Amino acid sequence: MSSAFKNCRTVMVTGASRGLGLQMVESLATGSFSPGKIIATARDPSRAQELQNLAGKYPNVHIITLDVVSQDSIEKAAKEVDAIVQGEGLNCLINNAGINVIADFETVTAEQMLENFHTNSVAPLMVTKALLPLLQRAAARGTGMGIHRAAVHQHHSLLGSIELYWGDRASTFKWYPYRTSKAALNMLSRCMAVDLQDEGILCMALHPGWVRTDMGGPQAPLSTEESISSVLSVIGGLTEKDHGGFLHYTGEPLPW
Amino acid sequence: MSSAFKNCRTVMVTGASRGLGLQMVESLATGSFSPGKIIATARDPSRAQELQNLAGKYPNVHIITLDVVSQDSIEKAAKEVDAIVQGEGLNCLINNAGINVIADFETVTAEQMLENFHTNSVAPLMVTKALLPLLQRAAARGTGMGIHRAAVHQHHSLLGSIELYWGDRASTFKWYPYRTSKAALNMLSRCMAVDLQDEGILCMALHPGWVRTDMGGPQAPLSTEESISSVLSVIGGLTEKDHGGFLHYTGEPLPW
Ligand SMILES: NC(=O)c1ccc[n+]([C@@H]2O[C@H](COP(=O)([O-])OP(=O)(O)OC[C@H]3O[C@@H](n4cnc5c(N)ncnc54)[C@H](OP(=O)(O)O)[C@@H]3O)[C@@H](O)[C@H]2O)c1
Ligand SMILES: NC(=O)c1ccc[n+]([C@@H]2O[C@H](COP(=O)([O-])OP(=O)(O)OC[C@H]3O[C@@H](n4cnc5c(N)ncnc54)[C@H](OP(=O)(O)O)[C@@H]3O)[C@@H](O)[C@H]2O)c1
Repeated sequence: MSSAFKNCRTVMVTGASRGLGLQMVESLATGSFSPGKIIATARDPSRAQELQNLAGKYPNVHIITLDVVSQDSIEKAAKEVDAIVQGEGLNCLINNAGINVIADFETVTAEQMLENFHTNSVAPLMVTKALLPLLQRAAARGTGMGIHRAAVHQHHSLLGSIELYWGDRASTFKWYPYRTSKAALNMLSRCMAVDLQDEGILCMALHPGWVRTDMGGPQAPLSTEESISSVLSVIGGLTEKDHGGFLHYTGEPLPW
Repeated sequence: MSSAFKNCRTVMVTGASRGLGLQMVESLATGSFSPGKIIATARDPSRAQELQNLAGKYPNVHIITLDVVSQDSIEKAAKEVDAIVQGEGLNCLINNAGINVIADFETVTAEQMLENFHTNSVAPLMVTKALLPLLQRAAARGTGMGIHRAAVHQHHSLLGSIELYWGDRASTFKWYPYRTSKAALNMLSRCMAVDLQDEGILCMALHPGWVRTDMGGPQAPLSTEESISSVLSVIGGLTEKDHGGFLHYTGEPLPW
């Protein structure tokens, strides 16, 4: 990992039990300039062995329990994060936890649509709301925009781009619950950017590429290391101009 | 009303108890070339007096009960529509029913997000799925694309455009549940366009303008007559080139 996070003192990653979330925590912990406090959340930490191993090895990794679809769990987690970061507040919140409820036009049910929307679109909102005082605390101590101050970042997907879902690109991944949830997440990210701008809290969405995880599957072209090394350098370099935007992991802007 | 619907034999409008849905039924019924069968749905027809009056006066207006968030109700309604349209199938489905659960960043709850998403984004999908055999039946009898054959149309909102929610436009209507539900609806409309294209079923989204209804409020610039006369002529003139698109009621394309 590069030194992209050298000005970030506290960072929180949701869904760090496996996949991209786990890789983020690992890359942040092993980087040359590791943030002072890396808060890694998992729905059930007792089943997240690799994450436990990381926390055993790197004392700046703090594991807390967070089920992003439970308001109780969100509020409890926010208190624990507060106790960990204290006066520093939270410089960077990474809303990474997500699910893909696979269903096409024929098979999809209302329940599947609601389930995917809840985890992928509603949860990032409720988590951000609960952590707002900590983001504000960090933002109050800086100027400009970026992770040296405070930033909220959502893990998006190219599959959530309405513009790109057409023509040649429209032959595969006909997943109604996932695609609609990610399009809604794009709007959510934009709404939060509008509302948090005056507080100096940067808000944006980023597509991590197609990555070999449980969700991405074995045929994906990128390893988690490749994706996350690029993702972290993009997040590390965010400035005002990225506020409210939707970026590819390579740093290129993506259409809605 | 113009003669825009002269090639459309059967049309169905959801949420026709009041507002834009009621106006559509009225404009279609009183137009010079009225469709043979206008199916007007309402959650509770007994409370939709104006709609009842229309049906009393125009025998081509058929009222059926439909609560778009109930799967039972959807399936029951689909059977009733089948009995009404019979061999003709359904030329035009207008997913109009919608709600605006007003909440901003501070007040919004997960339940409000889910409620608005269910009515505005999931319901149009479930209604379209249930009516697909009737749309296919109508589509099988034509060529090209448009309401002379089969079309599904969603009532969108400019407030669902992620692109447009920025800068000067971002100072008002900070409604998280509504905006995210309409952005998801844009994606849904696009997904259905991809999947129904081979069957010759046109699928698109249209913003009716800001209109004086219970939802639009008294300060809106357009009357329901003004909006719907323009909306119906846009829908009447739809062709292949509009498939998968997002249009303003004036016929201009809108950005996602
Ligand atoms: N992989 C890709 O190609 C790709 C591409 C574009 C975007 N993304 C996005 O990147 C993010 C991470 O994806 P991934 O590939 O790492 O997926 P993954 O391997 O399936 O991991 C998903 C993570 O989210 C967590 N999670 C799910 N529901 C949760 C809940 N209710 N509460 C707390 N945690 C929850 C999981 O925890 P458990 O272990 O407890 O289930 C797990 O840690 C997602 O938002 C995904 O949409 C991935
Ligand atoms: N007015 C505007 O300025 C504007 C602008 C952009 C888009 N739109 C869209 O246009 C559509 C119609 O809006 P409007 O202004 O006519 O709103 P409205 O006056 O509030 O009427 C909403 C209609 O939807 C029905 N509805 C709501 N939930 C339903 C359910 N679960 N099952 C069946 N019907 C249900 C209502 O039925 P009940 O009478 O039973 O409640 C009513 O008929 C909406 O999709 C809205 O988002 C409106």
